[in-house]
Amino acid sequence: MTAPPPVPGTGPDGLSASAGPPGPPGPRTGHHTRFDAYVDRYATRTRGMTASEIRALFSVASRPEVVSLAGGMPSLSGLPLDAVAATVRDLVATRGATALQYGSGQGEPGLRQQICDVMAIEGVDGHPDDVVVTVGSQQGLDLVTRIFCDPGDVVVCEAPSYVGALGVFRAYECEVVHVEMDGQGLIPEALRQALARLAEIGRRVKFCYTVPTYHNPAGVTLTAARRAEVLAICADYDVLVIEDNPYGLLGFAGEPPRPLRADEGGRVVYLGSFSKTFAPGLRVGWVLAPHAVREKLVLAQESSTLCPPAFSQAVVSAYLADHDWRGQVKQFCELYRERRDAMLEALTEQLPTGARWTRPDGGFYVWLTLPAGLDAKAMLPRAVTARVAYVPGTAFYADGFGSRCLRLSYCHPTPERIREGVRRLAAVVERERELRETFGAGAGPPHLETGYESPTPDLT
Amino acid sequence: MTAPPPVPGTGPDGLSASAGPPGPPGPRTGHHTRFDAYVDRYATRTRGMTASEIRALFSVASRPEVVSLAGGMPSLSGLPLDAVAATVRDLVATRGATALQYGSGQGEPGLRQQICDVMAIEGVDGHPDDVVVTVGSQQGLDLVTRIFCDPGDVVVCEAPSYVGALGVFRAYECEVVHVEMDGQGLIPEALRQALARLAEIGRRVKFCYTVPTYHNPAGVTLTAARRAEVLAICADYDVLVIEDNPYGLLGFAGEPPRPLRADEGGRVVYLGSFSKTFAPGLRVGWVLAPHAVREKLVLAQESSTLCPPAFSQAVVSAYLADHDWRGQVKQFCELYRERRDAMLEALTEQLPTGARWTRPDGGFYVWLTLPAGLDAKAMLPRAVTARVAYVPGTAFYADGFGSRCLRLSYCHPTPERIREGVRRLAAVVERERELRETFGAGAGPPHLETGYESPTPDLT
Repeated sequence: MTAPPPVPGTGPDGLSASAGPPGPPGPRTGHHTRFDAYVDRYATRTRGMTASEIRALFSVASRPEVVSLAGGMPSLSGLPLDAVAATVRDLVATRGATALQYGSGQGEPGLRQQICDVMAIEGVDGHPDDVVVTVGSQQGLDLVTRIFCDPGDVVVCEAPSYVGALGVFRAYECEVVHVEMDGQGLIPEALRQALARLAEIGRRVKFCYTVPTYHNPAGVTLTAARRAEVLAICADYDVLVIEDNPYGLLGFAGEPPRPLRADEGGRVVYLGSFSKTFAPGLRVGWVLAPHAVREKLVLAQESSTLCPPAFSQAVVSAYLADHDWRGQVKQFCELYRERRDAMLEALTEQLPTGARWTRPDGGFYVWLTLPAGLDAKAMLPRAVTARVAYVPGTAFYADGFGSRCLRLSYCHPTPERIREGVRRLAAVVERERELRETFGAGAGPPHLETGYESPTPDLT
Repeated sequence: MTAPPPVPGTGPDGLSASAGPPGPPGPRTGHHTRFDAYVDRYATRTRGMTASEIRALFSVASRPEVVSLAGGMPSLSGLPLDAVAATVRDLVATRGATALQYGSGQGEPGLRQQICDVMAIEGVDGHPDDVVVTVGSQQGLDLVTRIFCDPGDVVVCEAPSYVGALGVFRAYECEVVHVEMDGQGLIPEALRQALARLAEIGRRVKFCYTVPTYHNPAGVTLTAARRAEVLAICADYDVLVIEDNPYGLLGFAGEPPRPLRADEGGRVVYLGSFSKTFAPGLRVGWVLAPHAVREKLVLAQESSTLCPPAFSQAVVSAYLADHDWRGQVKQFCELYRERRDAMLEALTEQLPTGARWTRPDGGFYVWLTLPAGLDAKAMLPRAVTARVAYVPGTAFYADGFGSRCLRLSYCHPTPERIREGVRRLAAVVERERELRETFGAGAGPPHLETGYESPTPDLT
C-alpha cells in the first residue's frame, strides 16, 4: 500500500502565506507554511468561534490601577469562608468516597430536590426528575442549543443579548434575530412582528432566548403584563422559550418577579445557576425542562462530560443544607443595591447631556447609551488609558449594532471605586464629545446606529 | 399581525400516535398527541444521541447483590480522605475568594504547569501555554471533536473503542471507521489499508482516535515499535492523532510506555485526566495541543462552560502540591494489579474452553471473547439474573460488531468479589454453551461475528 498523492493544501480562506512559524503537521503541508498550520482541518462551526470583546478585555481590565466596570464577577467578599471551609472539610472526611467519585449524568438527586426548593421561592413548580445539573448555566445553554439547533436555524434574542449566549449560538451556526427592548423589557409587538416575518419567509425559529429578569446587559426587567403577552405570542407561533434566570433572587425591592416558567411548563426551558447566589467557581447550574427534553439533555450531558462534577454538587448541596443561604443572598442584595445606587448617582452627577442609561431593580448591570455620534468601541482604548474599563455594546449584538452603547457592571468594585470609575468614564465621554463637536460628524467611523432603540426607562 | 397557518406536525419518524401523555407544547401540536411532543424540534445530531449500553446497565449493576464487572469507577478507598479534607479546608479558608470565583477559560496557570510536570514523567515535553483544562477528558474529546469535525467527516478508531468517544463522535455526526487490533494494539498495516481505502474513495479523515496504553476496553498496549509505525502512517496520510491517555501511569510493571505525543508534537493532540490518578468527581482533565489548535480549544471551552471549575482545579493543584501523589498512584497500581491477578486467575480456572481474553499490563479492563456462537448482549439478562454484570462488546463498536465479546472491569470490586463474579459468569457461559450445543447454531439470533479479529494476546 502506498500513500495517495498529496493534495494541494490551501485553506478555506484561500490564502497560503510564504512565511510563518515552523511546524505544519506533516509532509503534505510542508511546502505550504501558514500562520495556523491546521487551518484547513477545522470544522465549519469554528468560523463562528471568535474571541469575544469581553475576553480581550480581561487582561487589560485586571490591572489594579484600572477600575473595571467590565466583568460580571460576583462579589464573594461576603461569603462566610471559614464556615464553608468547615463544611467542605466534613464533606470530604465523611463522604469523600462518594463526593469524589463519578456521579450520574443528570446530577445528584438530593441536589436536584434542593434546586426545586430554590425555584419554588420564585413560584416555579418543578420536579427533580426534570432537572439536569450543568457546568454552570453556560453549559445549560450549550446543551439546549446542541439538542435543538441545526446550522441555519433561527434563534430569537433580545437586543442586546447575553454575550455568552451569542457565542453559543454562533458555535452551533444558528442565525440570531434580535428583537427590540425598552425599559419594560422585550417589546411584545416587536416579537410578534419578528416571528411573523420569519414565518412568512419560511425560516424555522427553534426558540426565543430571553433573560426576562434583571437583564444582562440591559439592566431591565420584563413586566408581568408583558410576560403573559410574550408567552401567548410564542404559543401562537409555536416557539419554545429558553428562560435564562441567573439573577432572579438578586432583586433590590419586593418579591422576585415570577418567571415565565412558573406559568407555562410545556413551552419554557428554564436555566438556573448558583454562580450569583453562591459561587461561580463551582460551576453548578441547571436546566429545568419538559420531561422528553430532559431525556435528550441527559444524553447530551453524558456525551459532553460523562457527568457534571459530583464534588461541586456536593459542596453546593451541603452549603444549602448547612448555611443560612437565603440570609446570605439578602446580604448580597444589599451589597449590590448599594453599588447600583453609587453607580446611578455618579452617572447622574457626572455624565454629560445626551447620555442615558437604564435603572436596574436587581442584578449586576447598567446599559448606557452615549451621546449621539459617539462610538463605545472606538472610545475603549482611551477609556482604558484613563483607567476605566467597560464592555462595548457591539459585543451584545450578533449584527453589528450597539456601537453607541456600553455595559457597566457594578457587582464587583466597591462604591468608592464605582464613583471613581464613573468619574473617569465621564471625563472620557466629555472629551469624545468635544472632539466630535470640533471635528464634526465625519470624525468617527461610520457605524450602525439605528435599527434598535436602546432600552432606556429613564432619560437623565 | 396574525399567526401563520398551522403546519401539519408529523415528526421525522413519520409517526403520530393517537394516545400518550398530555401536554404537547402549544396549539400547533394540540391535535397531534405524541409520546415526545418535541420530536419534530430536535437537531439532526440528536438522532445519534442514544442511551449507551453502559448507561442502561448502571441501575441494574448497582444493586448490592450483583457483582459489577461493568463500570469503570476507580477505587477511591485508598485515598487519604482526612488529609485531603484538611487540604480542602485550608484552601477555602485562605484562598476561597479566588478558588470559588470565575477563572480563565484555559484553566489556572499554576495547575497547567503541574500538568506539564505530570506529563513529563511519561516523557512528554509540553508547555503550560499549550494546555487547556477540561471537565474531565470526556469534555476534552467533546471540544476536540467540536473544533475538527463537520457532519460526515470520518474518524478512525480502534476496534473496539472507548464507548464515551463513540458517543461524542455520534453526537457530532461523524462516521467512525474501526481498525483492527491484536494483542500488541492497533495493527499498523490495517491502519494503512483503512487510510488508503478512505483516500481512494475521497473521504476526509479528520483524525485517528487511539488509546495506545492499557486500552479501554481491550486491555492491550501498543508496542513501542508500532507507535513509531502508527505515527509514520498518520504522517503519510496527513492525519492528526488524538491520543487518549487516562491510564498511562497505572501500569503494573516497569516504566510507563512512552506516549505518541512524546515523539511528535505537531500532529498529536493529547488528552489526560486526573480521574484515575486522583478522583473523577472533580472532573479535571486536560488537552495538550499544538498552539494554534489550543487557541480554538479555549474558544470552544469558553462557549461551552465559560471556564472549567476553578474550585476543582484548586483542589487538584493543592493535592498535587501537598500530598505524596506519586506514592498514592503506586498504591493504586498495586491495588489494581492484585485485582487484575485475581481476575486473570479466576478466568483461567473457571472459563470453559473456547473463551479467550486479553492480559492487561495496566489500566482497568480485560476484553473477553466468548466461545464461538455465543452472544454477550443476549446473555446479559441471564448474567444479571445470576448476579454478575459486564458490558457487552457491541457497545464498543459503531458498526454492530463485537457481539461475541464483552468487557470486564477489575478496578472497583475486591479480589474476592472479582473471583465470585467470574465464577458466576463462568456458570452462565457454560449454560449458554450447553444450550447452543443442544439446540444448534440456529438457537441464537444472527449477528456480525467476523470483520475484526478480537485482540487476544494469549489464548487460554
